[in-house]
Amino acid sequence: MSMKYSFFDDYSEGVHPELLRYISENNDDQQLGYGNDDYCKLGADRLRAAFNLPDADVQFLPNGTVANVIGLVTMLQSFEGVVSPNTGHINTHEAGALEATGHKIIWVEAADGKLSPDRIDEALSRYEDEHTVVPRVAYFTQATELGTTYSRSELAKAIEHAKSKGLYTFLDGARLAMAIADKSLGLTLENFGELGLDMFYVGGTKNGGLYGEAMVITNVALKTHFRNHMKQRGGLMAKGRFMGQQFARFFDTDNLWLQLAEHANDQATRLYVGLEEMGIEFDQPSGTNQIFPIFDNDMIDLLLTDYGFYKWDKISDKRTKVRLVCSWATKPENVDDFLWSVSRLVNGQ
Amino acid sequence: MSMKYSFFDDYSEGVHPELLRYISENNDDQQLGYGNDDYCKLGADRLRAAFNLPDADVQFLPNGTVANVIGLVTMLQSFEGVVSPNTGHINTHEAGALEATGHKIIWVEAADGKLSPDRIDEALSRYEDEHTVVPRVAYFTQATELGTTYSRSELAKAIEHAKSKGLYTFLDGARLAMAIADKSLGLTLENFGELGLDMFYVGGTKNGGLYGEAMVITNVALKTHFRNHMKQRGGLMAKGRFMGQQFARFFDTDNLWLQLAEHANDQATRLYVGLEEMGIEFDQPSGTNQIFPIFDNDMIDLLLTDYGFYKWDKISDKRTKVRLVCSWATKPENVDDFLWSVSRLVNGQ
Amino acid sequence: MSMKYSFFDDYSEGVHPELLRYISENNDDQQLGYGNDDYCKLGADRLRAAFNLPDADVQFLPNGTVANVIGLVTMLQSFEGVVSPNTGHINTHEAGALEATGHKIIWVEAADGKLSPDRIDEALSRYEDEHTVVPRVAYFTQATELGTTYSRSELAKAIEHAKSKGLYTFLDGARLAMAIADKSLGLTLENFGELGLDMFYVGGTKNGGLYGEAMVITNVALKTHFRNHMKQRGGLMAKGRFMGQQFARFFDTDNLWLQLAEHANDQATRLYVGLEEMGIEFDQPSGTNQIFPIFDNDMIDLLLTDYGFYKWDKISDKRTKVRLVCSWATKPENVDDFLWSVSRLVNGQ
Amino acid sequence: MSMKYSFFDDYSEGVHPELLRYISENNDDQQLGYGNDDYCKLGADRLRAAFNLPDADVQFLPNGTVANVIGLVTMLQSFEGVVSPNTGHINTHEAGALEATGHKIIWVEAADGKLSPDRIDEALSRYEDEHTVVPRVAYFTQATELGTTYSRSELAKAIEHAKSKGLYTFLDGARLAMAIADKSLGLTLENFGELGLDMFYVGGTKNGGLYGEAMVITNVALKTHFRNHMKQRGGLMAKGRFMGQQFARFFDTDNLWLQLAEHANDQATRLYVGLEEMGIEFDQPSGTNQIFPIFDNDMIDLLLTDYGFYKWDKISDKRTKVRLVCSWATKPENVDDFLWSVSRLVNGQ
Repeated sequence: MSMKYSFFDDYSEGVHPELLRYISENNDDQQLGYGNDDYCKLGADRLRAAFNLPDADVQFLPNGTVANVIGLVTMLQSFEGVVSPNTGHINTHEAGALEATGHKIIWVEAADGKLSPDRIDEALSRYEDEHTVVPRVAYFTQATELGTTYSRSELAKAIEHAKSKGLYTFLDGARLAMAIADKSLGLTLENFGELGLDMFYVGGTKNGGLYGEAMVITNVALKTHFRNHMKQRGGLMAKGRFMGQQFARFFDTDNLWLQLAEHANDQATRLYVGLEEMGIEFDQPSGTNQIFPIFDNDMIDLLLTDYGFYKWDKISDKRTKVRLVCSWATKPENVDDFLWSVSRLVNGQ
Repeated sequence: MSMKYSFFDDYSEGVHPELLRYISENNDDQQLGYGNDDYCKLGADRLRAAFNLPDADVQFLPNGTVANVIGLVTMLQSFEGVVSPNTGHINTHEAGALEATGHKIIWVEAADGKLSPDRIDEALSRYEDEHTVVPRVAYFTQATELGTTYSRSELAKAIEHAKSKGLYTFLDGARLAMAIADKSLGLTLENFGELGLDMFYVGGTKNGGLYGEAMVITNVALKTHFRNHMKQRGGLMAKGRFMGQQFARFFDTDNLWLQLAEHANDQATRLYVGLEEMGIEFDQPSGTNQIFPIFDNDMIDLLLTDYGFYKWDKISDKRTKVRLVCSWATKPENVDDFLWSVSRLVNGQ
Repeated sequence: MSMKYSFFDDYSEGVHPELLRYISENNDDQQLGYGNDDYCKLGADRLRAAFNLPDADVQFLPNGTVANVIGLVTMLQSFEGVVSPNTGHINTHEAGALEATGHKIIWVEAADGKLSPDRIDEALSRYEDEHTVVPRVAYFTQATELGTTYSRSELAKAIEHAKSKGLYTFLDGARLAMAIADKSLGLTLENFGELGLDMFYVGGTKNGGLYGEAMVITNVALKTHFRNHMKQRGGLMAKGRFMGQQFARFFDTDNLWLQLAEHANDQATRLYVGLEEMGIEFDQPSGTNQIFPIFDNDMIDLLLTDYGFYKWDKISDKRTKVRLVCSWATKPENVDDFLWSVSRLVNGQ
Repeated sequence: MSMKYSFFDDYSEGVHPELLRYISENNDDQQLGYGNDDYCKLGADRLRAAFNLPDADVQFLPNGTVANVIGLVTMLQSFEGVVSPNTGHINTHEAGALEATGHKIIWVEAADGKLSPDRIDEALSRYEDEHTVVPRVAYFTQATELGTTYSRSELAKAIEHAKSKGLYTFLDGARLAMAIADKSLGLTLENFGELGLDMFYVGGTKNGGLYGEAMVITNVALKTHFRNHMKQRGGLMAKGRFMGQQFARFFDTDNLWLQLAEHANDQATRLYVGLEEMGIEFDQPSGTNQIFPIFDNDMIDLLLTDYGFYKWDKISDKRTKVRLVCSWATKPENVDDFLWSVSRLVNGQ
């Protein structure tokens, strides 16, 4: 890309060098295929330990769409559906992957991208009898597709409510690292497992990985045939070892996984604070690695000559909300440069 | 694995160091996501050049199951099916992945794993009218799941026949490199494209890659919505760059892709010749990187204490056909060791 | 049912005697199966003539769910979806039948149950690229599931808009007879075909039939494989003759089909006017064969001891909107009895 | 049809007059929709009594394809498949309806159209692990699509074997009446239930019905969500009453259902015996209502000017096996006429 810096997303970057080094240094042995290798075992053990879920099954999947589809399909009979916010990734940006497996998404409006007890109830209220799809799973994302987050108590309450209504609970954790790294939410690696989710996945791709998400399955009944679904839905990689290696390294004693997310969040916070000090408005607080400043359209056009970012929402004829994403690879000077560019425009230079 | 050497398969190994080096040296830039990056463009360009198919579309997919499913689905209306040998990977070892998209596999018995004009006709003869599935695609694998291969003229004839009957033609090339590297078949990178396949994929995983297969789409009508299908079926990787990089390196001027397959074939041939010289029987010639010697069961038990390989078919109560797979990473001494072990058993030591 | 009269729905009744008579008098001959019989030809001819669509294909299907599924599936590639009001039958009361074929319903809020150009645009605006489902069909219902109706110009405008955006247009006509019989709308049998729908179905079940809906296909491209889809989705009846006979009789010179709907509408109008004169409120005008009076909850409880009807919407803690459905079989005295019962309650007796 | 008589199939005829009379005489009351009416209850009660299965659930479905799909889908998780003879209706003549729900048919060669313990084992032997489809249901047809039949002990043995291997057992009874009416098989209405099938359906369409098959569900676990599947797969008829009425009449004290099949079988036997006496050859015995004489091709051409029947299999360049089907409506004189026509040809007139 010819621009100075891209804030488009957290998968614009390559892979964290530590992961490459680990792969490189453990490349000469032979291993069993399809995730039956020693590295997948090690990665799974370290995930179980990190999340304090000693009895969980862990399986590695190549990307988020496949992780969502496979995870949800294991929970559903053919006449059952998934409760999701309208903004859920499965509802908006997976090209109908879940419906392609035969299941309806029972979505509810959620301006903040979150499922609450009330919204769950709204979805459940649509159920009548055999003429309507049976709601069976509540789908959460943390951090959400909108950059918002659940606090620990908020998430615990929604999960508990879903379970009390007989729903399975599934969490899309493509950006879970950034939510755990946001200390204001009260979530830690240690206490996350206590939320009682039936299944969730731990994102690697958006947090410095080559590729790969780790599915953590705590519900015993969902473990039995998980690998059948994996194979059938294209999620079983012949050389699973590389995903095992990445997660073994992510969750080694230095906790690289959390470190990288903290860095991404910190740079986003620096951007937020810097822009706010210049008088740029926001309608949504900072927190994780995505921020959403509102710029004048003129300013956006000028900024786009040097920087990459997405226009998110039209605020008025003259102003637009944009999305800026930082990542493990965003350097402090990238943030400084952007702030300097904005400041020049704000000051009319 | 605790054994001396595994001949289980060609995905027991890590990744070829050159690929890792290339990824490592091109890791610091930012790129667009989802295969829209410069490396995917470069990899695609080099594939187009190598196969002499300047107008083909090239897309990178994470694994073979996903490549088969997505490729075939683009060719099928819901009432249409795929003609395949009974041994076709889609029919035997993908957990019903194609049927899970709603399509029937119209399989015919094929002891050698190949589709011939007669077998295609046999499948077509089952079609009657709207009560029967409409055959729409012929599915070829080269080299096949049984280690057999089509000669150039044999494959050309079968493809031509399928096309003359109004079928699309699709080739699963998970081990295409080994077939092109087998010079006795008459296939070259340059002439492969002349076969006129509508779509085929070029395997990376089994030939030293980290992961990834490259789909080559020559039929114009199938290009338009290929990426919609990719996304919907879980085949669109956010960081496509790594697959682009692997194939850019595979098809660089030194033609690493073909070199690695030649090495694998050579080691398999050495195994074959060595065993034959000791009087071990085969019911199938050598050729690519898989060989199928017939051993006494006693010998197998002893060999399995040191080596890994699969029992393939029972020949009699006392003898069994086994599969030995060599790869880019098989060292000549691995072959020598195995031959030495067999010779000791043959000689009753 | 032990009640005096049921206003639950228009399929509580048996079959109109004329249809039975016609079947009975044409029962002794042998016919080809699967809709290839003389009666299906006759029924189709009469439908083509009645709707002034001489080139249309006509196929008979056993019920509305199957008609919706098959009609829509013929229009969709796997990555495409259907634009529907949230209240669309396919979205609410078919147990996810369309999703079970792999397709997303892209629904928009529509308090009146109708698709307008604006609502179509709202659905289209969700489309971005290969990450989003491609909208491909606009799904209309006339009369709608809420008892509302499109005027001729309103429907024409919405259809035209959908077509201008590249969408196919499909109309669920389970209660089409009642809409055509409602003269205020400006629709006639003769001018309905001019709307240019790609496909619509003509309801039989809810208008006195035994079972069966007639699909009218005007789009040439959708005719070719319609019967393949019919068979695959369970819609091809071995003894299609009985559906052919029903529609042959419905569209005989006396136009029984329209007569029955007029009768149903007339009785509903009598109910509406009678209730209105007693001061019962409505928030939705009369028109076809469904009316929605708002009663006090006390009154509802008393009425339900003698009559059957569904509570539709809560208006306040004390008042509820209910649905009363009349049919071809509703006798004037059934209406009179109900009005008399209400009047006694209104007058406090 | 302009021919003298059609032996094409058992759905060329209209409906048995008794069924029409029963519908006609019970047409004036109002009933609940979707199979919740008094007639469905009565029909179900009589079926339970007739088959001596007091705890079975009974549901009515419009046709055989829908019955097969819905019955089988209730038994299957997405990675599971159905064991069937290659000739099974689901495998040959339902346009891929089962695959369209996502499931593989694991078919085995069966020249006589039947599943035996050995053939079940053959299918099971293809299963390996999560890479292969899990066999989950054994699909039987009685009488089979080839006109063959299982004796009681033969069927009992195959069902028992399937159950011992952990398979569900499902029987397609589109022509069950003819098999029970064939006294040589040892099956009676009373002892059929003792076979222990998890689910089977009782054909109406091919035995004089208007339309409709009755599903009998004995496995408790499969009852719970049967109606959800019915609705989702298009099998829930709004006016279920007419199917309930047909089966109530079929299984009234005169046992019309069995009578009609006996008549059909008797006429087929008369045809068989008559042809055999003239020296016409058969390679398959008589039994139910389908017979398969082998005629010279010249004779076939002449017979087809007056009669309808299907050519079934080529025996040699000069001779062809044809299928003649009798039904409840075949008159003795239809058989006599045909025999007379053949005799004239045999005698060279």
